[in-house]
Amino acid sequence: LGRPSEDELIETFFAPLAGPGGLGLRDDAAVLSPPGGHDLVLTTDVLVSGVHFFADDPAALVARKALRVNLSDLAAKGATPAGFLLALVLPEFWTTDWLAAFADGLRQDSVVYACPLLGGDTSRTPGPLMISITAFGSVPTGGMVPRGGVAVGDLIYVSGTIGDAALGLALRKRSAAEPSWTETMSAAAKSFLEDRYLLPQPRLVLGAALRRYARAAMDVSDGLAGDLAKMLRLSGTTAEISIADVPLSDAAREAVAREPGLVETMLCGGDDYEILCAVPPAWGGAFEDAARVAGVPVRAIGTAVPGAQPPTFKDAQGQSLAITQASFQHF
Amino acid sequence: LGRPSEDELIETFFAPLAGPGGLGLRDDAAVLSPPGGHDLVLTTDVLVSGVHFFADDPAALVARKALRVNLSDLAAKGATPAGFLLALVLPEFWTTDWLAAFADGLRQDSVVYACPLLGGDTSRTPGPLMISITAFGSVPTGGMVPRGGVAVGDLIYVSGTIGDAALGLALRKRSAAEPSWTETMSAAAKSFLEDRYLLPQPRLVLGAALRRYARAAMDVSDGLAGDLAKMLRLSGTTAEISIADVPLSDAAREAVAREPGLVETMLCGGDDYEILCAVPPAWGGAFEDAARVAGVPVRAIGTAVPGAQPPTFKDAQGQSLAITQASFQHF
Repeated sequence: LGRPSEDELIETFFAPLAGPGGLGLRDDAAVLSPPGGHDLVLTTDVLVSGVHFFADDPAALVARKALRVNLSDLAAKGATPAGFLLALVLPEFWTTDWLAAFADGLRQDSVVYACPLLGGDTSRTPGPLMISITAFGSVPTGGMVPRGGVAVGDLIYVSGTIGDAALGLALRKRSAAEPSWTETMSAAAKSFLEDRYLLPQPRLVLGAALRRYARAAMDVSDGLAGDLAKMLRLSGTTAEISIADVPLSDAAREAVAREPGLVETMLCGGDDYEILCAVPPAWGGAFEDAARVAGVPVRAIGTAVPGAQPPTFKDAQGQSLAITQASFQHF
Repeated sequence: LGRPSEDELIETFFAPLAGPGGLGLRDDAAVLSPPGGHDLVLTTDVLVSGVHFFADDPAALVARKALRVNLSDLAAKGATPAGFLLALVLPEFWTTDWLAAFADGLRQDSVVYACPLLGGDTSRTPGPLMISITAFGSVPTGGMVPRGGVAVGDLIYVSGTIGDAALGLALRKRSAAEPSWTETMSAAAKSFLEDRYLLPQPRLVLGAALRRYARAAMDVSDGLAGDLAKMLRLSGTTAEISIADVPLSDAAREAVAREPGLVETMLCGGDDYEILCAVPPAWGGAFEDAARVAGVPVRAIGTAVPGAQPPTFKDAQGQSLAITQASFQHF
């Protein structure tokens, strides 16, 4: 009773988010013209309720995460956001309150990141809610930072801090039998880690520095160890990583101090949405300076070396960490 | 046991379909550069198993339909396909046979329509299989045929034949108690109608004619009556349609001869994927000639007139058909 039709739903909740190329969401398609001398960069990521987020996560945060994981891909490619398409597949039981909050979250981030809604599709499903976003960005022609292209000797960098979201997810999953490491942690630290899981920070401000200094880049979405292995494999290299150099948040340090075994969770867990990149050593200092100016610190964690095996992660004593599952599998 | 990982699945089934901008599906993103003097046209459509197709439809046809419904949107905008992104969300129980057939269907049509795979995402779901495709096309700058823009006096045209897929769907849905109209129909006619439901024919060959002669266009995906109402509403016009002029296939004529009430099913059912457009009367002859040369006949079915009400559909006796549900709702 009173459930809006698909057209009413689009008109009410999504048309207000439309950019000029979105034609008020009243056409079959959208138009996008990359500025002269630019390529368009395309990326798509799908989020399924119960797989990529919890069904009871706040709708606005779900929306923002769905957009941000796509923006994180654009960031890693050195691209500037230009717009996005949204395919929203709703389960039988949805409320207009939920949808209003979802649309409002999407609106907030589409404004913050200057990435307007250009179009989309809505459908229903007997299964869980599903959000598929395709995002577009622009880079100067030929300037997209590739995933392949690491050269032996390159410094391997990551942005921000690693492992927070994996710890946040562990906190979210905790049952009545709470893992012992959380018992004495500060509420602020726990809240920080949970936020890092809920709301990625796409590192778009690093775009110019990446285009200028990085030979290869990707975003860390499925765990640092697995994603680094993927990046290196493409260029037939491997790397030696110093675990002590992997940047950790204060909250993550609190957790590791209580449970040293969490290091593997942090190196292999997903949802970091930080930038992983390879920079020639001669440009390392300039890259770090540019990143600092942009407001997102980067840290060299190791060096690319010849070899076909997965990268090694060494602790302060020079011992290699045995990694059992390098990559978080949503699949 | 032996289930491929996400990376293996992409490498095995989808990397062979990748176009140059797809970077072997080994990057986070794809690159696309519309040719100079062209805009990019973007469209996205999602198909959910059990909602948009039957779970036991052949995998290759599901794949081809998923791509073709997007190509149909590009066709209606006068755009030439440039590539697509695929988000594939698989249920718990899928087989490599199913996926191989799906990828092969997709490969066939990506070749036929010169529309290479550029990238995508895969995920699992506890719900039904879901396919979200985003397709890209190019049009000369400013040349996208809009949905709005109908002028009073314009001839309303449709391509091909209308209502076949709605009858095909009715045939697919028939229970043990088969509707009486199917009893004496030829097997060939029934098979034709079912095929029209399973496999749309995107009218891309009409692109040049639409760009040259059509003031407004869209594809008929949710039923002629409802889609025409949407198109007219955007330009504040309505139309008088002659039901006798709506082009029908021989198979559809067989059905209507047995059950005249099917006319409403045919005018309001979905999945035609024909072109609906408005052409100034002075250009009608030239548009029909161009369409004939392209190999897809078009037929004028009425005229745009002033008014805000939904279009009227009149039979040979001048009686208006009372339309109870103008538009097919997947939603």
